[in-house]
Amino acid sequence: MAVKRIEPGPRMSKAVVYNGVVYLAGLTADDTSQDVKGQTKQILDKIDALLKAAGSDKSKILSANIWLTDIKNWATMNTVWDPWVSPGNTPARATVEAKLADPKLLVEIMVQAAV
Amino acid sequence: MAVKRIEPGPRMSKAVVYNGVVYLAGLTADDTSQDVKGQTKQILDKIDALLKAAGSDKSKILSANIWLTDIKNWATMNTVWDPWVSPGNTPARATVEAKLADPKLLVEIMVQAAV
Amino acid sequence: MAVKRIEPGPRMSKAVVYNGVVYLAGLTADDTSQDVKGQTKQILDKIDALLKAAGSDKSKILSANIWLTDIKNWATMNTVWDPWVSPGNTPARATVEAKLADPKLLVEIMVQAAV
Repeated sequence: MAVKRIEPGPRMSKAVVYNGVVYLAGLTADDTSQDVKGQTKQILDKIDALLKAAGSDKSKILSANIWLTDIKNWATMNTVWDPWVSPGNTPARATVEAKLADPKLLVEIMVQAAV
Repeated sequence: MAVKRIEPGPRMSKAVVYNGVVYLAGLTADDTSQDVKGQTKQILDKIDALLKAAGSDKSKILSANIWLTDIKNWATMNTVWDPWVSPGNTPARATVEAKLADPKLLVEIMVQAAV
Repeated sequence: MAVKRIEPGPRMSKAVVYNGVVYLAGLTADDTSQDVKGQTKQILDKIDALLKAAGSDKSKILSANIWLTDIKNWATMNTVWDPWVSPGNTPARATVEAKLADPKLLVEIMVQAAV
């Protein structure tokens, strides 16, 4: 089976499609002046766009890993996540605290979806 | 191929089955008064139950991610993990330290298994 | 479909092959006296060897998770990662900070690849 890469860069690809699954990179916000809500919204928009590029959508997300630089933002992040997910089609998910590559980043999300 | 969700909630599903693989959510203990041994045991019991619901079992676990709020509990967690895994059928595994959603949680485990 | 395990141990396997995907364990350096560059190099060598044992190679890596004990080492780790990856075939990737099982470990990498 062929491996298809979406927006492949010299370090990583934004998404990789193989055997009916799309693996997305860990995604972060571009506008890091925004708070955790705004950053989460930016990330979910990126996920929507990359899933579309892969021929998938958020109703097909299988699994999600979420990292927050401060786990106290868990409930706030969920206020953006909960209305976004596809009702009845929510993924397996794990959320933990971790520092991210840039100190201004507050959240990073990595998902895998069916295509 | 269809995506099957087990105990789908408004935020996440406990498990998602697709293309011969079951993706479990990051699982934590319900009784957070217990120590790392007790919490790990609770989690492994949940994994057993969810794998059974998906038509799988622990001998088919492919990969596991374990988060400990204090990496010093690594050896103690392993005293529960090691007798639990299926001899000869152990998964790929990574264990790192991370704060979790509730400060009383000491360990979280997320696995993927063949079905 | 059969699950094939490579270097299965009592706690975990070094790699697990199933349904066209190889799941590698979170890999760390053996010589922990080395700096982040040296440790990263050791890990990438291990990845090459395990992928070969599974009938795969680095051009087929789908997804990678990288943990650094100090996220300030992100750029330094990349100076070893970037020349190693297969041009045009880079994986989805997420890199976050986390303490690891041994305080001398500076980096841990876990990948999944097509076989």
